[in-house]
Amino acid sequence: VSGGGEAARLAAVLRGLGGSARGHDVAIGIGDDAAVLVPPPGQRLVATVDMVLEGQHFHRRGPAAAALRDIGWRALAVNLSDIAAMGALPRFALASLGLPDDMTPADVEALCAGMAALATAHDVAVVGGNLARTSGGLIVDITVLGWAEHPVARAGARAGDRLCVTGRLGAAAAGLALLSREPATHGALGRAADSVLAAQRRPEPRVREGLALGAMARAGLVHAMCDVSDGLALDLSRLCGDALGAVVWRDRLPIPPEVSAVADALSADAGTWALHGGEDYELLCAVDPAALEEVRNAVQRSAGVPLHTIGEFTAGPGQLRLAARPGDDGRPLAAAGWDPFR
Amino acid sequence: VSGGGEAARLAAVLRGLGGSARGHDVAIGIGDDAAVLVPPPGQRLVATVDMVLEGQHFHRRGPAAAALRDIGWRALAVNLSDIAAMGALPRFALASLGLPDDMTPADVEALCAGMAALATAHDVAVVGGNLARTSGGLIVDITVLGWAEHPVARAGARAGDRLCVTGRLGAAAAGLALLSREPATHGALGRAADSVLAAQRRPEPRVREGLALGAMARAGLVHAMCDVSDGLALDLSRLCGDALGAVVWRDRLPIPPEVSAVADALSADAGTWALHGGEDYELLCAVDPAALEEVRNAVQRSAGVPLHTIGEFTAGPGQLRLAARPGDDGRPLAAAGWDPFR
Repeated sequence: VSGGGEAARLAAVLRGLGGSARGHDVAIGIGDDAAVLVPPPGQRLVATVDMVLEGQHFHRRGPAAAALRDIGWRALAVNLSDIAAMGALPRFALASLGLPDDMTPADVEALCAGMAALATAHDVAVVGGNLARTSGGLIVDITVLGWAEHPVARAGARAGDRLCVTGRLGAAAAGLALLSREPATHGALGRAADSVLAAQRRPEPRVREGLALGAMARAGLVHAMCDVSDGLALDLSRLCGDALGAVVWRDRLPIPPEVSAVADALSADAGTWALHGGEDYELLCAVDPAALEEVRNAVQRSAGVPLHTIGEFTAGPGQLRLAARPGDDGRPLAAAGWDPFR
Repeated sequence: VSGGGEAARLAAVLRGLGGSARGHDVAIGIGDDAAVLVPPPGQRLVATVDMVLEGQHFHRRGPAAAALRDIGWRALAVNLSDIAAMGALPRFALASLGLPDDMTPADVEALCAGMAALATAHDVAVVGGNLARTSGGLIVDITVLGWAEHPVARAGARAGDRLCVTGRLGAAAAGLALLSREPATHGALGRAADSVLAAQRRPEPRVREGLALGAMARAGLVHAMCDVSDGLALDLSRLCGDALGAVVWRDRLPIPPEVSAVADALSADAGTWALHGGEDYELLCAVDPAALEEVRNAVQRSAGVPLHTIGEFTAGPGQLRLAARPGDDGRPLAAAGWDPFR
């Protein structure tokens, strides 16, 4: 972005992003010093922020380049996932963009269009924004606000609770691995490649599933929840906290056939992707063992993805183990995953 | 920032920032997927985000280098100013940091200490945070949330309303001009230099004054408000909207002696700084002419800075004029100020 006259056009792009944002609970949207929003009676405010940076979380150039629409989608998706992990309803977003000189207003429109597509799908109103010029790479920092009567914390799992996860694991990591290969590899893998690349580029935040699990938490049947952003093992270690351990059953991990197909083609290990790959944006939770069926049915009724039982919480601090199947003793599992400063 | 082992230390810095944040209205602070906050009954939620970038809004090196503590302070201050401009009470902050490899954990601590100092002064709880590594310059993006029963919008000024501003104008621009000169110039100017440099480096958001003006707005005596971030003329044009103009009285501009002294020393025009310099973070508002005294007294009672009457709103769209004094006709005033894409 360059030139003085473009500030107005860019501001219009941002206002356009907020254009569909008026609702009964948006008193003032984009364009004032701050947004003004109306809290529903009896609800708590849930707030999260997550920044994605060119070169760290995405690329605009080179073999692993992402489309601007996908970058916008993804930046919002990771925040919606955090709100979903609280069992809360996401409702508002504020977008802060740092724009390099080489981006045209049309580029910014594409970025915002991706964000708007996901926002519209989840009825999230973009109520604030901020544009800055940067001499570095593209910066997309998004704050999402939501509501919940009884948000679900990370803390609260008990020894004996079942460890459950929504959807599938390893697809985003498979997509990331594939991105660094020649497009010829993608072609040979056909629909398996399309599927894992889509998981990497356009993660679907588990908002409906989070609300269903939040309702189960209110009923005392789900005890703790987080999302899988940095890898199952690392996020699980956070769910365990200082007082618990957990065992993961390898044969129960929901690794879909397309992930296995990509792993075979790249001579990689699908299990490692599922355990340590990250960016799955599934929900991981501790479920009362007596209520497994009820909780699974509740997630099913949300019209979301299935809930899988993949292990259990154990007494004793900080010990993660990987077993072949329920009943096996297994071996220690490292709490390794995505580290932003690695 | 580099090396895998530092992620934990950095996370501790961020948690430290949130350490003093527990209050009756913070159910969950930093460390979960999202913060959980308790809205006070009958209040509206006010939300803003503002990003500051190395090379654009501050420098860490060279003659105009800012201290990390000041960078942290300033990044929060500009957001508190936006909340103050709504007549709202700032209460929570979420900080998103993009850290270059050359920053040590001690550097990050200094940055966070500046932020924490201002947060503590205004009883703002840091409830969320996000750390990323960047190959570009330092990124500080802050979201602030606050509460107000009746927030004051930018829109609402009426022809005949008096134009009022808190505090002083031009000091931050004087400080910016001074930053690019040799330190010898600072020395010769003595306390005048200290004063304008402090205004540039550690702006004081007008939170108390904003709350007092918000109370006057509820009583129908203040009709519109914004902060002066991009320069008096440009921010005034936004307050006028499409339907109004305004005249500014040159002799009433609160340009303090230290700003005039610096302008003289640098052969610059203090009036230009006051009108177009920006970064003053004062509050600009439209006041019912019959209630001027009452509104001024209310701001005085807030233990804040004085409120000055510097002009009035006129009928007719988009026309800004600069007059020597009340009663003069004056000349057109350009709505020029800070443009992030200039």
